Amino acid sequence: MTKRNGGGPATAESMASKQRDISVSEFFLKNRHLLGFDSPRRALLTAVKEAVDNSLDACEEGGILPEIAVELEQIAESRFRVMVTDNGPGIVKNQIPKIFAKLLYGSKFHRLRMSRGQQGIGISAAGMYGQLTTGAATRILSRIKHAKTAHSLAVQIDTRQNKPAILSDTEQDWLPTFQAVNAEGQPEGEPVISKHGTSVSIEMEAAYLRGKQSVDEFVKQCAIVNPHLTLHYSLKLTAKPEAGNRGKENLKPETGNLKLRAEGGLSDISASGLKFQVSGFSSQVSSVTYVRAVKEMPKIPDEILPHPHGVELGMLMQMLKDTESRTVRSALSGDFSRVSAQTALDICVRAGIEPKTNPTRIAHHESEALYKAIQDTKLMRPPTDCLSPIGEAQILAGLQKELKADFFTAVTREPAVYRGNPFQIEIGLAYARPAENEGLGNEEPVRVMRFANRVPLLYQPGACAMTKAVTGVNWKSYGLSQPKDALPLGPVVILVHMASVWVPFTSESKDAIASYGEIIDELTLGLQECGRRLSVFLHKRHRELEAARKRSYIELYIPHLALGLKDILKLTGKEEDKIVGNLKKMLEKTHLDV
Amino acid sequence: MTKRNGGGPATAESMASKQRDISVSEFFLKNRHLLGFDSPRRALLTAVKEAVDNSLDACEEGGILPEIAVELEQIAESRFRVMVTDNGPGIVKNQIPKIFAKLLYGSKFHRLRMSRGQQGIGISAAGMYGQLTTGAATRILSRIKHAKTAHSLAVQIDTRQNKPAILSDTEQDWLPTFQAVNAEGQPEGEPVISKHGTSVSIEMEAAYLRGKQSVDEFVKQCAIVNPHLTLHYSLKLTAKPEAGNRGKENLKPETGNLKLRAEGGLSDISASGLKFQVSGFSSQVSSVTYVRAVKEMPKIPDEILPHPHGVELGMLMQMLKDTESRTVRSALSGDFSRVSAQTALDICVRAGIEPKTNPTRIAHHESEALYKAIQDTKLMRPPTDCLSPIGEAQILAGLQKELKADFFTAVTREPAVYRGNPFQIEIGLAYARPAENEGLGNEEPVRVMRFANRVPLLYQPGACAMTKAVTGVNWKSYGLSQPKDALPLGPVVILVHMASVWVPFTSESKDAIASYGEIIDELTLGLQECGRRLSVFLHKRHRELEAARKRSYIELYIPHLALGLKDILKLTGKEEDKIVGNLKKMLEKTHLDV
Repeated sequence: MTKRNGGGPATAESMASKQRDISVSEFFLKNRHLLGFDSPRRALLTAVKEAVDNSLDACEEGGILPEIAVELEQIAESRFRVMVTDNGPGIVKNQIPKIFAKLLYGSKFHRLRMSRGQQGIGISAAGMYGQLTTGAATRILSRIKHAKTAHSLAVQIDTRQNKPAILSDTEQDWLPTFQAVNAEGQPEGEPVISKHGTSVSIEMEAAYLRGKQSVDEFVKQCAIVNPHLTLHYSLKLTAKPEAGNRGKENLKPETGNLKLRAEGGLSDISASGLKFQVSGFSSQVSSVTYVRAVKEMPKIPDEILPHPHGVELGMLMQMLKDTESRTVRSALSGDFSRVSAQTALDICVRAGIEPKTNPTRIAHHESEALYKAIQDTKLMRPPTDCLSPIGEAQILAGLQKELKADFFTAVTREPAVYRGNPFQIEIGLAYARPAENEGLGNEEPVRVMRFANRVPLLYQPGACAMTKAVTGVNWKSYGLSQPKDALPLGPVVILVHMASVWVPFTSESKDAIASYGEIIDELTLGLQECGRRLSVFLHKRHRELEAARKRSYIELYIPHLALGLKDILKLTGKEEDKIVGNLKKMLEKTHLDV
Repeated sequence: MTKRNGGGPATAESMASKQRDISVSEFFLKNRHLLGFDSPRRALLTAVKEAVDNSLDACEEGGILPEIAVELEQIAESRFRVMVTDNGPGIVKNQIPKIFAKLLYGSKFHRLRMSRGQQGIGISAAGMYGQLTTGAATRILSRIKHAKTAHSLAVQIDTRQNKPAILSDTEQDWLPTFQAVNAEGQPEGEPVISKHGTSVSIEMEAAYLRGKQSVDEFVKQCAIVNPHLTLHYSLKLTAKPEAGNRGKENLKPETGNLKLRAEGGLSDISASGLKFQVSGFSSQVSSVTYVRAVKEMPKIPDEILPHPHGVELGMLMQMLKDTESRTVRSALSGDFSRVSAQTALDICVRAGIEPKTNPTRIAHHESEALYKAIQDTKLMRPPTDCLSPIGEAQILAGLQKELKADFFTAVTREPAVYRGNPFQIEIGLAYARPAENEGLGNEEPVRVMRFANRVPLLYQPGACAMTKAVTGVNWKSYGLSQPKDALPLGPVVILVHMASVWVPFTSESKDAIASYGEIIDELTLGLQECGRRLSVFLHKRHRELEAARKRSYIELYIPHLALGLKDILKLTGKEEDKIVGNLKKMLEKTHLDV
């Protein structure tokens, strides 16, 4: 059964004969957990996330207030169709195959600009996973402005070559259409029809489960941090077959079962105002619309040039080789941010290089001198208007919508820089009432909600710099208990957001942020600021509780005191009542310091 | 300073014009933290790890008892030369450029066989990082058996195209030579000269720091789990310049400073028997040899074929398309493990497919039927003789060498399977004496040492299934205290090893293992077994301590009892002493149950 190694140990020659190229698609197919497709549950979330990221980016780049529909349909026990439709600018036809069926292709990688996507992998990876698990193609409908029809394509990846294969290519009369639902999940108002947009549909092996890492949670958090977004979410589940058939059989439709329906429904029904809209005996549909809270687009972030202090020697050499400028001086001032013509001249002089030298003819030792001169030159920090933070007001509003809590605070830090990339940290913190919020309690670890460029991060908290920073803060000094090297305990929700022109994720699935020192530092400062405010609140609350306790203690004795006075002074019952009343009034007026 | 977006929002057409291919080298250059090169300290470790992995794999494949030299030399304040030399079979010349300067190239990806490397990225990534930070090329010396000279090449990656560029290519009279050192770091015995082997040298921005994530620790742990390896490790540090110059200036040699020397030296000097061998005023050299403990090679693992139950539908379709077999039946029995000719026939019949059908002409619905038939067919589990575990005896020996502890145990689980890939979990556990082991204590989280295919994993514990499994076990029931959702506390070291034909790492840096359910389950069972044994030990120890406490309590009263008896019975002092003696003897004989 095993494939033997051909008798005896390998030689340099026999090993050489086995060396081969590995296509990037093959690599990620075998390592699909790197892309977030290691389990059917996570696969469903990752596919939705990649499609929604792309839709939001496209709408925002096109200056369009985003309206997005996410539709999940269970088509067999362990198979779903994921469909995401947007009102974005659409995609020109010849780009569709590469965008949806080629890894490492895109417009966002070679620029420094804050966006959700950045790698050119995500949506093609989702399609590749669908293809792997169901053999089905990715289907795309897209209509651009002023076009007469929409393009309808079915594409797959040729994984051996990482190239798209087009299975069908037709034109179709299609307009993206969005139907809002009310709190009962019933259609409300007329459908909204857009004249342009894109819809992508992928069939894949997947599993729907509620909870903290569910699509429901992703969609909800997405709406919180993107208040300009209208998002329609619908879920069509088919009842599960008998337990005995699980995992092997396709779905056998069953007669209706209300209990099953409730179990399969959206999470947190009361909070989100969802109701089920049962469309038959064997399936259940639930839908919700998150209507946009603001009608202004967030500021469209600017693209920036690399900052010289964030560029390594090897990268500098590459940039000088590739530049379109004719002199070193103009390359420095033209290809980098924060380098004026004068500064460029200073750098050349400091490096001992003639400023008019052709940059493509620079020798290794000259690059080294230039690199050193750049490091020794004081430069303004990178521009930070390229970032679009959520803002303290919006973070507070988001938390208040989600939680029953007695204390809310938020901090948006000033922008900072890691490896030449501007970034900005925001923290929100709420101290909730344990009885009114599921999963929160005095003995429970705090809940950390993580976001990067307005995208919720639901997986791999343990790998994330955000978790690391929360764990690293000394919360005992702010009034929370905290086991060693662990999250603090208490009914607390902490929201953390990082905005950057380049978010350093720890893997291609973009679930966790790498622990660069500068990022950890900024996170820590923001958390400490919130911690100090929490500590003031907890201290005050403690004092108030203590005062209330004292007062109730004294109140206990007032009737006895009145009774004693009545005996001594021979008072009537009416006079006694008056004394009790007066004493209580006095007590209320008195400031009880603890 | 910012690069504006060209006025106004983007259109489908303007966005299309920005779409581009991204080369895999560019991708990883920008995401170098994915490869383990996010900080100078980690970069040093990652480079050593990748080179040592390759050397060990090459030696074992070639049937050669490995002898490896790791040399780190600080050549400027933040710059090191990393050189790793082995006595492996060597590399044929035309393969050298691709192996060392092209990402996604190698012999280990397209096979299922237990080895350290698997991705075809590691060593080229280290070279690419060196090139990025210093502009220097990777230098390789390699000599194969029966060759008259060695090849000496200098290569770099053309990152735009992910292709090697050869900067120099000469022949050289070179033989890999290894010099052992004694406990004082002094040369001992004659140098060992091999007739074949490879040496790779990379200059890079790096930092040397001692501690749990250091090269020292990696090298030490590597020697523990590879007892057939002789490993020479030498570190040459140059004294640091004044604090004021740090980070900007190259190193200025200083006059000798013993304190600095001690600070810069290898960690854990007393434990590893290291001494410094000072070679001048401005630098320090420390070296150590870990001599092999066994002279037998570990079993060379077999390569296996994919197991049908681990192959997804899409992969099955691809395999049928690519097979060299002429019939579906022979493709099933020839390309998969655990499928006999009879089983292949049964599968075809069950799927309703003529067994002699040409596999390349199978339609989509036929593949689906075949896939379903395979799932419904009972098959033997994948072969497991392809795994080479460390073994319980070796794990115990390794832990005993490292720790002063009162209790050791080890478990090697039976092989199991995830996604069709055989794997095997091993656990070692030691309950140490806190006073005699640094970093361990009753209030400290336990220390977890992680290994995959005999490679120590030092980074990203929070992302790793191994940490998750340790945290998930209820250690309170085994006698350790444990904060919620956190590691247990106590002077305990837990060693975890996963051996597999394909280790699912959470990122290309290969520091943490993905949380597949089957892997978590096996880890948990192994940990629980060790936990139960620990609990027996702790219970017994508790009983003994309790007995000792009772005894000392009773002993306290014996003299008073004797004095009373003396008074009552009018005994002499000698008789009193005898009574005390007798009572003590009785006490010692008595079994004191708690």
